[in-house]
Amino acid sequence: MKKSLLTLAALTAFAGVASAQSSVTLFGLVDQSVMWAKNGNNTMKGVASNQLASNRLGFRGVEDLGGGLKAGFWLEAGMDNDVGGVGGSNGLGGSVMFNRRSTVSLMGGFGEIRLGRDYTPSFWNYTVFDPFGTNGPGSMLNVISTLGSGAITLVRANNTVGYFLPEMGGVYGQLQIAAGEGNTGNKYQGGRVGYAAGPVNVAVAYGRNPDSGGLAANYTDWNVGGSYAFGPAVIMAQYSKRKFDLAGGVDQKTWELGGTYAIGASTLKAAYVRSNGTTSALEARQIAVGYQYDLSKRTALYATYADLKNETGAKFNAAGGLPLAIAAGDKSRALAVGVRHTF
Amino acid sequence: MKKSLLTLAALTAFAGVASAQSSVTLFGLVDQSVMWAKNGNNTMKGVASNQLASNRLGFRGVEDLGGGLKAGFWLEAGMDNDVGGVGGSNGLGGSVMFNRRSTVSLMGGFGEIRLGRDYTPSFWNYTVFDPFGTNGPGSMLNVISTLGSGAITLVRANNTVGYFLPEMGGVYGQLQIAAGEGNTGNKYQGGRVGYAAGPVNVAVAYGRNPDSGGLAANYTDWNVGGSYAFGPAVIMAQYSKRKFDLAGGVDQKTWELGGTYAIGASTLKAAYVRSNGTTSALEARQIAVGYQYDLSKRTALYATYADLKNETGAKFNAAGGLPLAIAAGDKSRALAVGVRHTF
Amino acid sequence: MKKSLLTLAALTAFAGVASAQSSVTLFGLVDQSVMWAKNGNNTMKGVASNQLASNRLGFRGVEDLGGGLKAGFWLEAGMDNDVGGVGGSNGLGGSVMFNRRSTVSLMGGFGEIRLGRDYTPSFWNYTVFDPFGTNGPGSMLNVISTLGSGAITLVRANNTVGYFLPEMGGVYGQLQIAAGEGNTGNKYQGGRVGYAAGPVNVAVAYGRNPDSGGLAANYTDWNVGGSYAFGPAVIMAQYSKRKFDLAGGVDQKTWELGGTYAIGASTLKAAYVRSNGTTSALEARQIAVGYQYDLSKRTALYATYADLKNETGAKFNAAGGLPLAIAAGDKSRALAVGVRHTF
Repeated sequence: MKKSLLTLAALTAFAGVASAQSSVTLFGLVDQSVMWAKNGNNTMKGVASNQLASNRLGFRGVEDLGGGLKAGFWLEAGMDNDVGGVGGSNGLGGSVMFNRRSTVSLMGGFGEIRLGRDYTPSFWNYTVFDPFGTNGPGSMLNVISTLGSGAITLVRANNTVGYFLPEMGGVYGQLQIAAGEGNTGNKYQGGRVGYAAGPVNVAVAYGRNPDSGGLAANYTDWNVGGSYAFGPAVIMAQYSKRKFDLAGGVDQKTWELGGTYAIGASTLKAAYVRSNGTTSALEARQIAVGYQYDLSKRTALYATYADLKNETGAKFNAAGGLPLAIAAGDKSRALAVGVRHTF
Repeated sequence: MKKSLLTLAALTAFAGVASAQSSVTLFGLVDQSVMWAKNGNNTMKGVASNQLASNRLGFRGVEDLGGGLKAGFWLEAGMDNDVGGVGGSNGLGGSVMFNRRSTVSLMGGFGEIRLGRDYTPSFWNYTVFDPFGTNGPGSMLNVISTLGSGAITLVRANNTVGYFLPEMGGVYGQLQIAAGEGNTGNKYQGGRVGYAAGPVNVAVAYGRNPDSGGLAANYTDWNVGGSYAFGPAVIMAQYSKRKFDLAGGVDQKTWELGGTYAIGASTLKAAYVRSNGTTSALEARQIAVGYQYDLSKRTALYATYADLKNETGAKFNAAGGLPLAIAAGDKSRALAVGVRHTF
Repeated sequence: MKKSLLTLAALTAFAGVASAQSSVTLFGLVDQSVMWAKNGNNTMKGVASNQLASNRLGFRGVEDLGGGLKAGFWLEAGMDNDVGGVGGSNGLGGSVMFNRRSTVSLMGGFGEIRLGRDYTPSFWNYTVFDPFGTNGPGSMLNVISTLGSGAITLVRANNTVGYFLPEMGGVYGQLQIAAGEGNTGNKYQGGRVGYAAGPVNVAVAYGRNPDSGGLAANYTDWNVGGSYAFGPAVIMAQYSKRKFDLAGGVDQKTWELGGTYAIGASTLKAAYVRSNGTTSALEARQIAVGYQYDLSKRTALYATYADLKNETGAKFNAAGGLPLAIAAGDKSRALAVGVRHTF
C-alpha cells in the first residue's frame, strides 16, 4: 500500500527552531462499503468500514541525523468511520488513539531498532500472502483462532522492542520482544525472515507467548507463505499452525491458496481457505471472490463475496463487518461493495 | 462557515508515491466562553465550549479522478476544549473520534454519493434558519425533543448512504438512508430540498425512524425554513413538527422567528422560539439576543443571552453549556461571553 | 523545548477563504524507553513512554489581527505510545483528547488572555527548576502529594480563565481562575511571578482550591524555585509546601537541589529530593542521576536512574513508568534507557 502522500514543508521562521530535515507526513485511508450478510438464517444489511483495507489516520516522519543515522516516528490510528468511532483497541481496555502503530525508531546501516506498539513478526505472512489481506469477507483471518490462550499478540503487541535487518540482497527479517508488564497475554517473542526478488516473495515466521492465559502455558504461532508473479497474475499460498499447551493441548492448522489477476484498472481475486484443528469447532472452509477497479492510485471501487462453511461447533464469521451474530455450525455469507480512498 | 483554511502541498519525493492532485485540508474551530446560568433558583458560573459554534478539528481532501469525477473524504471530530475532552458521541456508546462527520464520497456531474457517519437531511433547517445556529443559549435546538422515541438521528446518523444533487440553478437537495444494524434508534430515511438564489433561501425536509424505540413505532420529523436578506439585515423563520406514534401518539411543533443585522464588523442577532406539544411538558418559549464582533474572518468576540420559560412539566434548558441541573417548570436563563477562533 | 517544527502554508484557492496569515503548526514528541524497576522485592522490566519528556501530539496557530492584536489556539494531546493509548486524563473521567492543553487566546500589548484547559500557575516551578522536569525516575514530582484533598489541579485545571503579563524586562507572571462547575477538586485560583535575565531565573507561585474534597476545606500549594547558569553548568533549587485544612490539617514540604552539566552533545544531570510532612507517610528522599546524548536538536538518547527511600507508611514511587505496585515503606529504584524524538 502506498500510504505516503503528503509532506509538510518545514518553515524555520515560525515560533521556534526547525531543523532543515524536519518533515512530517500525514496519511490515511477511508474505506466504506455497503454490506449484506447472512449467518445461518439471519440476514443484515448495513454500512461497514475496513472491508478492503483498514481505515486509518496517521502522522510519521524521518529525521536525517547524519553519518547514515536516522530517527523516525510513526503514529497510526484506527478508525471505524461508519460510526465515527475509534477503531480497534490495544487488548488492554481503556481509550486508545494510535493503536495501529505507535513507535519511535533509530535507523542506520545496522538496520532499525523500534520501540512501542507495533505489529508482531508472526502477523505479517497472514496479510502479505492473502489476496484479501486481513480485511473483509475474503480474508483468511476470518478463520484464525488464538485457541482461548488469552494471547493479544496475533496482530500487534504493546511494549515492544524490535529489530529489523537492513536491506541486503532481497533478504529481510525482524525480531521482536514484548514485555507483559503484568499482562501475560501481551508477553511475546517472535521473528520473521524472508526473501523477495523479482517475481518471488517467500517468508517464514514464528512467535510465542510463553505465559499466555495467566498460566505457565505456551502459545505458539508459526506460519510460512509465498507468492509468485507471472505477467498480470500473482499466485499466493500460506500455511500456519497455532498451538496452545493448556489442558492437554489444542492446535489449529490453516492453509490458503489464492491469487489475483490484473486487467487494466481491474483486478480479479480469489482464495480458498481451509482450517483444521483438534476439535470440530476449529474446522471450516471459506471460498471468496473479489473484484477491484482502480479509479486512481488512491481510489478504488470493489466488491468482495465470501462463503464460509463451519463444521459442527465452529462459529467462524465472514461477516465481521456487521454486528450480526453467528451460531455454532452456521454457514456465513457476506458481500461488501464499497470504495477505498487513501490520502 | 468558512472552514477550509489550510492546504498541504503534495510532495512526491518523500517515502512513497503521491499523485499530483493530493491535497489534505486541516481545519478546526475553538470556541470558549465565560458563561453564567440560572435555572430556577440555582446559578452557576463557568467556562463553556461551543456557545457560538461547535468546536472541531478535521481533515478533509478531494482527489480529481479526471473526466469530471472526484473522490473525497471528510473526517471531523468534536472537542470539549474547556475540559480537554472528546466532544459529543455517536449515540452508540464507546469511544468516538471523528464523530461530527466521517465520510468518503464520489462526486461528479451526477451529484455526490456519500458513505459513513453524517448529518441527517432533516437536521439542516434547524441550524441554517436559526440566527444562533445550533449552538449556545439562543438556539432553537434548546427546546427540540425527540419525544422519548429513542431516535439518535436528530442531528447525525451512523451507517449512512447519502445522495446529493449536483449544482442546478439554485435548487439543492439530498436523500439519505441509515442502517440500524441492530440499533433501531439509528435506522433512518430522509430527504431535503431547497432553493437558494440572491437574497432568498428556502428548504423543506423530512425524516423518519420507522422502528425507533425498539418497537414498530414510527418517529417522524418534518421541518421547513426560509431566510431573506435585504441590505445588512437577514430575517429567518422556521417551523417543525416531530411526531411519535407510540402510546397513543405524541407530537411537538416548534417555530422560530429571528434575524441578524450587520453594522461594519458587528452583527446583532435576535430570535423568538415557541414550542407546543401534546402535553405541557413540551410547552416553552425562548427569547434570545446576541452580539458578535468580528476581529477578522477567523476570529470573533460574542455575547449571547437567552431567557427560556418552561410550562409546568417542561424542563428545556438554555444553559446546556454548563452542567447545571434544571427542574420541571424552571425558568432558564443563560449568558455566554466568549471568543471563537477558526483555523 | 523547541516544539514548533512545521508550518503549513495557507492556500486561498481551495474550498473556502483563507486569510494570508493562516498558519497551523503540527508538533509532537515520542519518547520510549526500556525500563527496569524494583519496588521492595518486586522487579519488572518493560517499555515505558514519557521517561525523559511527555509524549504529545498537537496543533497550534497564531493569527495576526492587526494593531498589535493576535488570536491563537493550542490543542495538545497526551499519548502513551508504548501501548498506543490516549495519555493522561482530565481528572473528570470520560474520554479525553487534547488533555494536555486546549486553549484559545487573545494576545496584545496588554499580555494574553487564555481560556480553556491549561497548566496551573502553581505547577510550573515543579518542572522548570527540576533537572529531570516532571518526567521519569528522577523527577521531584515522584514525591509530591495532594494530601488526599481531592484537588485535580496539581498540574492542570479545566474551565480556566488565565491572564499572562506581556514581555517586560525579564519579569513574567500569570494569574488563573478555574471554575469548579460542580467539581470542587477543579475549583482553583492561583498566580506566579518570576524574573529571568542572563544566567538567572527565579519564580514564586501560589495556588489554592478553596473547596477541594467536597468540604469547605482549603488546599493550598506554594512553591519557589531558581536556577543559575555558569558556563556549561546550571544549578537548580526549589522549595514547596502543600497544606490541607481538613481533619486537623496536614502539610508536606519538599525541596530539591540539582543541576546539569553539558559537555558537547552530552548532558549530565543529578538531583537530590527531600520530602517532610506531618506524618511519616509523607517522608521520603530521592537521589537521581541522568545522562543525555543529543543526536540532534530533535533526537536524544538518555539514561536516568533514581533511588527513592520511603519512611514507614510512605509509598512514593520512582518507577511510575511501569505498572509495578509499591507497598508502604518500600524502597523504589528505577532505570530508564530510551530515545526522545520531537517533531
